[in-house]
Amino acid sequence: MKTTSEILKRAKSAALSCAPLDTNSKNAALLNMAQSLINHTDDILAANKTDLENAAEKINEVMLDRLRLDEKRIAAMAEGIREVAKLSDPVGRVLSETIRENGLKIEKISVPLGVVAIIYESRPNVTSDAAALCFKSGNVCILRSGKEAFLSASAIVKALKEGLKKSEISEDYVNLVEDTSRDSARELMTANGYIDLLIPRGGKGLISACVQNATVPVIETGTGICHIYVDKAADLQKALNIVDNAKTSRPSVCNAAEVCLVNRDIADKFLPMLAERFKNRAEIRGDKEVCGKICSTPAGENDFDTEFLDYIMAVKIVADVKEAVAHIAKHSTHHSESIITEDIKAADYFTARVDSAAVYVNCSTRFTDGGEFGLGCEMGISTQKLHARGPMGLNELNTYKYIIHGNGQIR
Amino acid sequence: MKTTSEILKRAKSAALSCAPLDTNSKNAALLNMAQSLINHTDDILAANKTDLENAAEKINEVMLDRLRLDEKRIAAMAEGIREVAKLSDPVGRVLSETIRENGLKIEKISVPLGVVAIIYESRPNVTSDAAALCFKSGNVCILRSGKEAFLSASAIVKALKEGLKKSEISEDYVNLVEDTSRDSARELMTANGYIDLLIPRGGKGLISACVQNATVPVIETGTGICHIYVDKAADLQKALNIVDNAKTSRPSVCNAAEVCLVNRDIADKFLPMLAERFKNRAEIRGDKEVCGKICSTPAGENDFDTEFLDYIMAVKIVADVKEAVAHIAKHSTHHSESIITEDIKAADYFTARVDSAAVYVNCSTRFTDGGEFGLGCEMGISTQKLHARGPMGLNELNTYKYIIHGNGQIR
Repeated sequence: MKTTSEILKRAKSAALSCAPLDTNSKNAALLNMAQSLINHTDDILAANKTDLENAAEKINEVMLDRLRLDEKRIAAMAEGIREVAKLSDPVGRVLSETIRENGLKIEKISVPLGVVAIIYESRPNVTSDAAALCFKSGNVCILRSGKEAFLSASAIVKALKEGLKKSEISEDYVNLVEDTSRDSARELMTANGYIDLLIPRGGKGLISACVQNATVPVIETGTGICHIYVDKAADLQKALNIVDNAKTSRPSVCNAAEVCLVNRDIADKFLPMLAERFKNRAEIRGDKEVCGKICSTPAGENDFDTEFLDYIMAVKIVADVKEAVAHIAKHSTHHSESIITEDIKAADYFTARVDSAAVYVNCSTRFTDGGEFGLGCEMGISTQKLHARGPMGLNELNTYKYIIHGNGQIR
Repeated sequence: MKTTSEILKRAKSAALSCAPLDTNSKNAALLNMAQSLINHTDDILAANKTDLENAAEKINEVMLDRLRLDEKRIAAMAEGIREVAKLSDPVGRVLSETIRENGLKIEKISVPLGVVAIIYESRPNVTSDAAALCFKSGNVCILRSGKEAFLSASAIVKALKEGLKKSEISEDYVNLVEDTSRDSARELMTANGYIDLLIPRGGKGLISACVQNATVPVIETGTGICHIYVDKAADLQKALNIVDNAKTSRPSVCNAAEVCLVNRDIADKFLPMLAERFKNRAEIRGDKEVCGKICSTPAGENDFDTEFLDYIMAVKIVADVKEAVAHIAKHSTHHSESIITEDIKAADYFTARVDSAAVYVNCSTRFTDGGEFGLGCEMGISTQKLHARGPMGLNELNTYKYIIHGNGQIR
């Protein structure tokens, strides 16, 4: 078994010593990686079977389903890698170019971050997605899979490395942490000088552990307490469809809405429509005023600060867009919020003041997604403000450097 | 006295509740702030006098000089604010705009970060510089001055707030921490939910304390162990002037060079030229081979890992550009490095492989500076890779958000 510290050293040394790869070599290697996954389908399924057996009594059916692979899912992972090969190369973009009066030519060029570490949980597909995105963006990656998925991740990484090898590219571009105890996570969080960016992908506990304990740069992802505000000038039928979609189309994801704020002026009309639509499909947890108007569960103390990830929506009545914005400022995780209104002034007030990664007018919060935004893929959705906000695509896995050409200039 | 936690709450609430300011209002307020500094020259000088008296026996002459204000320095601070007023507004830039097939219009717009905290040491001018840059970029700032400069900073902030008041803009845009004990620094470092970005400006100790202890996002600034590599294909006269300039024009700043790497093939010619030029002006600390060729101090164990900030340069002989790049990878702080060569291949190898904020060909490292890069100003020089790298101007004090307009789209 390789220790985590050995893996850190190898990764750093690969990032330093590997020649910058050109786009064609990277794309060819990605196709080899995809093919190698397919070729190793049997090995990967066997490893996954053992993972599933070991985990069977420890985790619930939802978690087991996340962990479970079949031929179709492996083919989808390979297809995901091929899609990444098709995206344009983020490295080497000239972000700006100036020639100064003294003759210095200053170029600002996008370059890989270096070593990117990803700590995740039990979805084996994260292994290949993250590896492909890091590789295409010129980074060396260090993957730390959750314990339950370790054998699956291990088989996947083995296949990916074989794809790299076939392309005569260093296998050290893709690394899997072999120690699945908490120690290794802590070691990654404090590996200053070895890791340029740490991305936690998973639940609230994992993310907050990284934010609290990491001394390496971290991008927070994912937690979404998303709001929809139905304004008094809303088209109520539109509002109903949007709230329904944002809540129920896929409740387990971070861009699903958790809270609906309803303007008092249209509450008597809208709330019964919502209650009817959600009947036997989703639970409404209403504030006192809501419970006075429709039959709903009284909202508890924490219901406006909870990412339910379930068929549950907290509903509250507000006086106006101002109160809606104030509520969002207090309770949001700054992921995605939407206003439903035909009043341009209310929409402008909302978009100017709401401080979230994605602020919507008259559409569902479910669109906060790399694919939907046209980035072609995503490494997660950043809910912080530094470096990347919202869906992180390939460009967000790059930094830049200034390259300055002179002919003897001194200052 | 206001507690730090009160200040954090006021700042956050100002960031949330203040209407986004338009460019003209911000510029007018900046001019009022500058004028108010001039009007309060006497108060500021009186406060500074007390600071100097209190510090006289505790800090050395260099530090006292940094702390000292006079009419001219205050006028320069005011002029600095007026310069910021002239720069273009970073807020509201449309960074990208796409219309998706489903009709969604997705705009990526630059917006203020929110609350920016700056922890600094004894230069009173940082107070007005940082306040002006944060204000122009739409941010609320929290300033924490070093203890020695507190009364000066306090008088400056009082004047700045008066300028804001005259423009009928909330004084809470500019805040000074009143508790100068270490507790307040620690409180800022862990004020998650209140501070969007923390920038330490000062020595290595301060910066590493922030990186180690902060749970809020931090940008590392400043430490510069900058290298110049004199290649075998260098124009030696050019090389001499550049090394001299990079070392001796202002040794106390972070973009000054600390290490010179000399190609073995030209060492016999170049080293005597360097020794002659530095004679009685700067000390050379040479590796074994250098000491065999010219009269120089034998370099100690740490001399290739030290930011001297003084008239001292560590000098080492290397075989080629490859060895130079490897040495830099191991010892650099990733600030600024330069190659002196007439060989384009060597230059390209160097610029592609050296992983620093600014990589130069045939010029001095001293150009790494917001003004020299055409940014008009700077908040510091980032030596990390997330968000901002190299000189941070107004744009780097913004983040972005996505604003998406639809007409009922669901997913």
